[in-house]
Amino acid sequence: MAPRKEVFEGVEWRIRVAADGSSEALVPATGLARKAWLGIKGLISGFALKVRMFVKKAWDVGTNDPRKVIHCIKVGLALAIVSLFYFMRPLYDGVGGNAMWAVMTVVVVFEPTVGATLYKCFNRVLGTFLAGFLAVGVHWVGSQSGERVEPFVVGASVFLLASAATFSRLIPSVKSRFDYGALIFILTFSFVAVSGYRVDKLFELTHHRISTIIIGSSLCILVIMLVYPIWSGQELHSLIVRNMDKLANSLDGCVTQYFNRSGGGTNSEEEATDNKLQGYKCVLSSKASEESMANFGRWEPSHGQFNFRHPWKQYLKIGASMRSSAYCIEALNSCIKSENQAAKLIKQHLGSGCLKVSSSSSNVIRELAETVKMMKKKSSTTDLLAEEMKSAVQELQNDLKTIPHLLNQSAIPGNKTLETTCSEATTPTVTLMELVPVVTLASILIEISGRIEALVDAVEELAKLAEFGINDDKSKHSKMTDKTVSDAKHITQGICLY
Amino acid sequence: MAPRKEVFEGVEWRIRVAADGSSEALVPATGLARKAWLGIKGLISGFALKVRMFVKKAWDVGTNDPRKVIHCIKVGLALAIVSLFYFMRPLYDGVGGNAMWAVMTVVVVFEPTVGATLYKCFNRVLGTFLAGFLAVGVHWVGSQSGERVEPFVVGASVFLLASAATFSRLIPSVKSRFDYGALIFILTFSFVAVSGYRVDKLFELTHHRISTIIIGSSLCILVIMLVYPIWSGQELHSLIVRNMDKLANSLDGCVTQYFNRSGGGTNSEEEATDNKLQGYKCVLSSKASEESMANFGRWEPSHGQFNFRHPWKQYLKIGASMRSSAYCIEALNSCIKSENQAAKLIKQHLGSGCLKVSSSSSNVIRELAETVKMMKKKSSTTDLLAEEMKSAVQELQNDLKTIPHLLNQSAIPGNKTLETTCSEATTPTVTLMELVPVVTLASILIEISGRIEALVDAVEELAKLAEFGINDDKSKHSKMTDKTVSDAKHITQGICLY
Repeated sequence: MAPRKEVFEGVEWRIRVAADGSSEALVPATGLARKAWLGIKGLISGFALKVRMFVKKAWDVGTNDPRKVIHCIKVGLALAIVSLFYFMRPLYDGVGGNAMWAVMTVVVVFEPTVGATLYKCFNRVLGTFLAGFLAVGVHWVGSQSGERVEPFVVGASVFLLASAATFSRLIPSVKSRFDYGALIFILTFSFVAVSGYRVDKLFELTHHRISTIIIGSSLCILVIMLVYPIWSGQELHSLIVRNMDKLANSLDGCVTQYFNRSGGGTNSEEEATDNKLQGYKCVLSSKASEESMANFGRWEPSHGQFNFRHPWKQYLKIGASMRSSAYCIEALNSCIKSENQAAKLIKQHLGSGCLKVSSSSSNVIRELAETVKMMKKKSSTTDLLAEEMKSAVQELQNDLKTIPHLLNQSAIPGNKTLETTCSEATTPTVTLMELVPVVTLASILIEISGRIEALVDAVEELAKLAEFGINDDKSKHSKMTDKTVSDAKHITQGICLY
Repeated sequence: MAPRKEVFEGVEWRIRVAADGSSEALVPATGLARKAWLGIKGLISGFALKVRMFVKKAWDVGTNDPRKVIHCIKVGLALAIVSLFYFMRPLYDGVGGNAMWAVMTVVVVFEPTVGATLYKCFNRVLGTFLAGFLAVGVHWVGSQSGERVEPFVVGASVFLLASAATFSRLIPSVKSRFDYGALIFILTFSFVAVSGYRVDKLFELTHHRISTIIIGSSLCILVIMLVYPIWSGQELHSLIVRNMDKLANSLDGCVTQYFNRSGGGTNSEEEATDNKLQGYKCVLSSKASEESMANFGRWEPSHGQFNFRHPWKQYLKIGASMRSSAYCIEALNSCIKSENQAAKLIKQHLGSGCLKVSSSSSNVIRELAETVKMMKKKSSTTDLLAEEMKSAVQELQNDLKTIPHLLNQSAIPGNKTLETTCSEATTPTVTLMELVPVVTLASILIEISGRIEALVDAVEELAKLAEFGINDDKSKHSKMTDKTVSDAKHITQGICLY
């Protein structure tokens, strides 16, 4: 098809050229035009490809996480509602034609989670209030001191207060709670103080600014809390639970894969397993999101199973404790991938012990995940599993102790394991190198189990602080939290791609 | 003193009560008033203490990092300059009384680093342009379709475009470059489209908005680039160099401390050493700041030794490579602190090998830091040091191999080391446990040296991408970068407290 079309195009060109009567002059131009046309076509198709790729990516974002789409619709909805202020005359006149500030408030204040929106609303209203009153005061002082001095009074006050407020934004404790408020303070103060020079009814201006901002903020709070709300606290809770499960799967998976490496399995299966094994990387990289969620969580009122003063900070401690285990899993992984191959005999000898420690450790983590998910007190199961883990560690240590014993008895000739011979003539030819990877793995596993004990303590502390109860009505809660966890999986999927 | 004063106060009260002639009724009130007074006093002193603490903290922030104070002064300066628009009638009239938007632009766009400010300025101008033209178009369509239909056309367009723009903010590739632009797009579009219903001269409004924003942005860019500029790229560069040094110190320090533990030294000395040893934690926790700096760095024009298209992304790879070494140092640390004490003999045997690996590894890292700092090509020194590291690793592996040999020869009776006896009667009583910590440490060290090789490759790649030259004029550059590194140490000190 393609060549024929080209010929046809060529003919078309030639006809047109002939009609012009300037065929000679246009022959090179035809070549040029074709080149240009091909170039443009290439550009267009390249651009189209890019657009298609982008649309595909956007589509994936939407289908992977329908809650993002809902968030967008919520923003549109809030904006459309606040626009009514403009279209309805009584509302418009009520705020002296300054309805635009309500629209602006909605745009800048609306965030995906309830906590973030509340934080911004509170900060915006507080910052506006403070700055409004201060600015009116400064304007009064300025107007008392005469028209020539006023610009200097106002200018100096803007310079000083803006610098001071900017400085407060750089202090960590202020930044975490009032960063946005300080920004709005500077904004409103400059606005009102400087306007005072040209606007007569300054008090009214301030009043309108404050009321429009309150209107916009209230509307945002209503929409964000009534239409399919997403709570920062709930997200944090689910993230921690999910990360615990990932940690357990990684730990279990790595060690199992090392000792039972079969080599079989299809590619896609292997990929799925690999993804599972890499789960601990999510734990390593979720520090920043945990912190921001905990920060916003404390602005949220009581919701679901969480009270207003739920100890979100304790979740950060749990997260840090999980990360300290994840560091060790990283080291474990490296020693699994190490070039030094372990001797089969040693692998067999320590295998069951290592597998026991890893499986009991990951069982403890899974039970902790369950405890947090269900918000129940530390159950006797946790104690039991922790005891099991400790005894598995003890067993592994005993296995380590008996390695020389074992080697001595199974003196297989030619087997290059740690072996010492009785005859003085032959010096020991055997190296420790085949022992090193397994011993390293075992001792890292023992270290991990120690860190998991710290994790148990952190979760226990959370249960105490949050006054977790003993949930008998397990099935009901289970259903509910399963749903929220699977929901939460969606919105935070962007955080971690493993 | 206190009791006497109390008596005196009591007397004073009594006199006043007597004067009132209602002594009986007021006797309990006196107690209450005193309690209230004491309560208020307690509150005030508590508040004063808090204020004092806060002021101290703020003072520390300022003295630790004078650049933060300079930033605040810059913000104040920019705002004071832009306020001139208000005070000068020709300028004020020139933008139709909308000078306020220039002030607002300065407030929201001014960031501590040049890159961040440029990013915001560019996004703000672009978003305003696009939205302004689109909104004028929508208004035209609306006005053509009659007054009754107009609110619906405008409302629907606001809903749709705001939703779409919000959605685009959730796509990672858009978010990293145009997040702020999308926000400003929504803001301006709502503003202009909705205003169209009430404002007659819509085109002028749009024109004024765009020009005021350009004025504000230009002013910001001028101030941020002319007055003591802080470049994101330079910050990132210095952070990476600093983190490399920290990594080298931690690695070196941990291993040296383990093998040469003297137990001496004063408390403050120990604290200083501990701080040094914990340096690797900075590397673990600086991922987020590295990413944001690299993100802003690409907006920056050529500055200092850096070109416009300096490969900032490669710095992220170097950072990731350093973090992978830091994970191993964390594991190393845990095995140093482990409860299992290593046998002295083994410690002596492996000590020199381990120390050699750790010191040669940290020498490689220090040389890499120097390479990056000076922006020079991978020098022969690096190759030499890397070779040295490899041979040290080889030596350590040989040492590991000869452990059994050594133990066999030095059969000290009663020495609980790995020992196998020739007599069949006595079963081997010796455990591997005393060997495990040192062997683990050695194998983690070997793993770290492997990861450092990857780091060498990453730095080499950077040198290639950034076209580092061979700097002969070492002293000059050294002076300059030393200064910038020490400067950069200040502004980013808040990032890491170790």
